[in-house]
Amino acid sequence: MTRSPVLVDLKFDPQTIANALQKAFPDRGSINLADPVNSGADLADVDYAILWKPERALFSRAPNLKVIFSGGAGVDHIMDLAGLPDIPVVRFVDHSLTTRMSEWIVLQCLTHLRQVDAYRKQALDQHWHELPQPEASEITVGVMGLGVLGLDAVAKLKTMGFDVIGWSRRHKTIDGVTTYDADNLDAFLRETDILVGLLPLTPETTGIYDKALFSKLRQDGALGKPVFINAGRGKSQNQADLTNALSSGVLGGASLDVFEIEPLPAEDPLWTMDNVVITPHAAAASDVRALFRNVETQIARLERGEALEHVVDRATGY
Amino acid sequence: MTRSPVLVDLKFDPQTIANALQKAFPDRGSINLADPVNSGADLADVDYAILWKPERALFSRAPNLKVIFSGGAGVDHIMDLAGLPDIPVVRFVDHSLTTRMSEWIVLQCLTHLRQVDAYRKQALDQHWHELPQPEASEITVGVMGLGVLGLDAVAKLKTMGFDVIGWSRRHKTIDGVTTYDADNLDAFLRETDILVGLLPLTPETTGIYDKALFSKLRQDGALGKPVFINAGRGKSQNQADLTNALSSGVLGGASLDVFEIEPLPAEDPLWTMDNVVITPHAAAASDVRALFRNVETQIARLERGEALEHVVDRATGY
Ligand SMILES: NC(=O)c1ccc[n+]([C@@H]2O[C@H](COP(=O)([O-])OP(=O)(O)OC[C@H]3O[C@@H](n4cnc5c(N)ncnc54)[C@H](OP(=O)(O)O)[C@@H]3O)[C@@H](O)[C@H]2O)c1
Ligand SMILES: NC(=O)c1ccc[n+]([C@@H]2O[C@H](COP(=O)([O-])OP(=O)(O)OC[C@H]3O[C@@H](n4cnc5c(N)ncnc54)[C@H](OP(=O)(O)O)[C@@H]3O)[C@@H](O)[C@H]2O)c1
Repeated sequence: MTRSPVLVDLKFDPQTIANALQKAFPDRGSINLADPVNSGADLADVDYAILWKPERALFSRAPNLKVIFSGGAGVDHIMDLAGLPDIPVVRFVDHSLTTRMSEWIVLQCLTHLRQVDAYRKQALDQHWHELPQPEASEITVGVMGLGVLGLDAVAKLKTMGFDVIGWSRRHKTIDGVTTYDADNLDAFLRETDILVGLLPLTPETTGIYDKALFSKLRQDGALGKPVFINAGRGKSQNQADLTNALSSGVLGGASLDVFEIEPLPAEDPLWTMDNVVITPHAAAASDVRALFRNVETQIARLERGEALEHVVDRATGY
Repeated sequence: MTRSPVLVDLKFDPQTIANALQKAFPDRGSINLADPVNSGADLADVDYAILWKPERALFSRAPNLKVIFSGGAGVDHIMDLAGLPDIPVVRFVDHSLTTRMSEWIVLQCLTHLRQVDAYRKQALDQHWHELPQPEASEITVGVMGLGVLGLDAVAKLKTMGFDVIGWSRRHKTIDGVTTYDADNLDAFLRETDILVGLLPLTPETTGIYDKALFSKLRQDGALGKPVFINAGRGKSQNQADLTNALSSGVLGGASLDVFEIEPLPAEDPLWTMDNVVITPHAAAASDVRALFRNVETQIARLERGEALEHVVDRATGY
């Protein structure tokens, strides 16, 4: 039995991928589409593909794919592709990625709690002045999306002392955390001082963070004004509404890792707004070595007759 | 039996203290030295005093004190006072203060881990560029001082994924944390990428963070260069050495809440150095209402014949 090489089409740093592929998939090899030698490669017999923002023509070039593995936790870059075959699409779920995301989320919540922007401005003026300071337990962090990433963030925010509540499509039970399901979004928003977005991008979550939503956040919390943090997907935010909410003072601050258009255009006002932290979709990078190990394990499971893990539900899109 | 009022000499915000005293000590009252009416008050019969940077003449004005309560976790502002009577000095240990300190410590460690300064500079240039990013487990945070504050910080840094080691005068056993005692400082420093200072100020810890110490920190860690974080006391740092270590690149960054001279003078170069975070001794403010409740509880314990808690050891000075 000959094993078909794994097709790799990842729009990440090419050198990192080339290096990691040298040791990956020793028993079947790989075809790296980022390598020009493979531009015309015959993909007819390929069974498995690992994709991040793949080229459109891929599915006609590789018509016999059995499984698609996403190069990251999100799959929106695959699910909306024309010609996507009706085969399992597998998300990348990884301890390191989860940990990195929670680092970023906890950092941003503490940044707003501890008034980092105000203290930095004081330091630029050599101004020594202690500000009134609520503690974490006085702030309610509302996490939208209680999946792999949301649940880890919730646990770590609790450990840091924040009051934490959560919202997800289906109701969840989490010890010490009040949770709301899709029907109770308004009740959730009313309690929220810092909103953390960790939703996947689907038709339902597109543009969900908009003017109406921002206006429902708690306006008299211990931080003075609500704060918006998004590390899910940029197309979930109505960015014009977000920019207006920040400049009009409906929101007191934001931390944004994702944007409607990435890279965020140089002329975008968000880059330099007061109390707004911008990172370039870097909250939780996929470690490609872990990704390739993960795919190898999943292929072995499948070929032993076991079920794939983290398969996307085609009905909900995540 | 008449109860003597509690003497209060706290160099905090006067209005906050006046407000909190209105409801404190209902059965014995208080004498607030910040209130001008009390400037000439007779203190001869006072049993208990709550002090933060008290006036020098206090101990001769109140010669019959039985217990001194510190207004904060540190007692260096009391221990080095001329004329300090040989009576118990009690530290303020409080859940809220501990939680706030850990907020600040975790925030600073994540700030350096996640390259906040570099990303902010990129944002000012509207420059979208993802930086190589180690994860928390690749960084060893070395915590100097494993007391009430150090132990809480250690637990929370572990939860965030950091590798954590600790150093204290007497050897400690902490699950999952390599610990070093006073004799093994160099071995501890060799492993440390981010040094967190949570030591009390005593003759032994004065000037402990100096050129020699900074040069022993790990120079080839995943952050590139070691980072120094201090929220203990400013006089534990040789600030000229610290400034040199930062400008010469022995240290890659710092977060400082405490300084040799406070307020930090306007002309000090630390205010605006690259990758240096300055806060005005605001890491963990004492909540005076909690402080007064704490003192009330301790007085009640004493008068029931029980032992005071958190009494300072006069031999070690903390
Ligand atoms: N910025 C970055 O660097 C980065 C890195 C990795 C991932 N991400 C993003 O983070 C997202 C979340 O990742 P994950 O691994 O946590 O995903 P996940 O495990 O699939 O969890 C998704 C969560 O969102 C909830 N949800 C989905 N649609 C919803 C809707 N219409 N209404 C209410 N709740 C809804 C789900 O509810 P149920 O629990 O009811 O299913 C679930 O709790 C990814 O999809 C990706 O876009 C960003
Ligand atoms: N910046 C702020 O806002 C702020 C707020 C509160 C407190 N603080 C500072 O934080 C300090 C620590 O507070 P804490 O409540 O954690 O104090 P603590 O419970 O008394 O603990 C002190 C720790 O330091 C260690 N230590 C003391 N002298 C030492 C020496 N010479 N060599 C090695 N280790 C030594 C002790 O070792 P052993 O375990 O062997 O005794 C202990 O682990 C306070 O003293 C105060 O100065 C700052």
